[in-house]
Amino acid sequence: MLSEDEKFMKKALLQAERAFNRRETPVGCVIVKDHKVIARAYNRRNEKKNTLAHAEIMAIDKASKKIGDWRLSGCTMYVTLEPCPMCGGAVIQSRIDRLVIGTMSEKNGCAGSVTDLMHIKGFNHQVEVTTGVLEEDCSNILTLFFKKVRAENARKKADNLT
Amino acid sequence: MLSEDEKFMKKALLQAERAFNRRETPVGCVIVKDHKVIARAYNRRNEKKNTLAHAEIMAIDKASKKIGDWRLSGCTMYVTLEPCPMCGGAVIQSRIDRLVIGTMSEKNGCAGSVTDLMHIKGFNHQVEVTTGVLEEDCSNILTLFFKKVRAENARKKADNLT
Repeated sequence: MLSEDEKFMKKALLQAERAFNRRETPVGCVIVKDHKVIARAYNRRNEKKNTLAHAEIMAIDKASKKIGDWRLSGCTMYVTLEPCPMCGGAVIQSRIDRLVIGTMSEKNGCAGSVTDLMHIKGFNHQVEVTTGVLEEDCSNILTLFFKKVRAENARKKADNLT
Repeated sequence: MLSEDEKFMKKALLQAERAFNRRETPVGCVIVKDHKVIARAYNRRNEKKNTLAHAEIMAIDKASKKIGDWRLSGCTMYVTLEPCPMCGGAVIQSRIDRLVIGTMSEKNGCAGSVTDLMHIKGFNHQVEVTTGVLEEDCSNILTLFFKKVRAENARKKADNLT
């Protein structure tokens, strides 16, 4: 049986799949309050041509609109990939209590990988972090995506040579 | 005569004044490319009830829409107050080349005050930072705003007691 964290990460993974199907780097996110999903989003950066179209930013936008407050106190964010500095910063600024991560981002992660924004004592808000929830699934969908992109690029190159 | 940096910071200050007049913490921002302003915005967090309504995020949104690309390479951001972690992260993610700051934010600044996101070698982008441009003006408008808010709160309290 799935734990509550796994249950909500599954929902974030469903969002990542939607990104995958639209040829976007597959990252998905849900925000939960009182054991209910109040916002969900997936990465749409290429489609929107806008760096703000990361899954976490769009989920925070939706959650704020739903609650009618910029403060998302009492909320937990579930995200399949460790947030970048912008999204990590947005988690702090919106006062989200807890961040649950699927897989880590060695290149750009701001919850422990490249840097850790979640536990800086100088800020007036710190975030409880849980990592490695459905890690394999969250990592596999990314691996599969980049494999597919590389294969497509190789095919295009070969087509151009013939 | 004003330098180019001072000229554009003046424009950011005009944006901060618009925030002031709407009873928002007075922070203003412009984004410049090829010596021309391509986006301008001011803090509207309380009006919008959304943490994403910081001046810098809205300016990045407008600039991306104008350019039609999430990459803002070749752009300089002028902002009256040192960016928070979210906005600092957004500067990195959108690949803005240069960040020009009016006054520093000891409580929440991410370009050297609380932490420095702009020069982390682990990220694939670093940002050139210039500080202290029209510092007194950028600081004064904030001081004036918080003084006004405190006076209003004291008056309300006095009214309730009589």
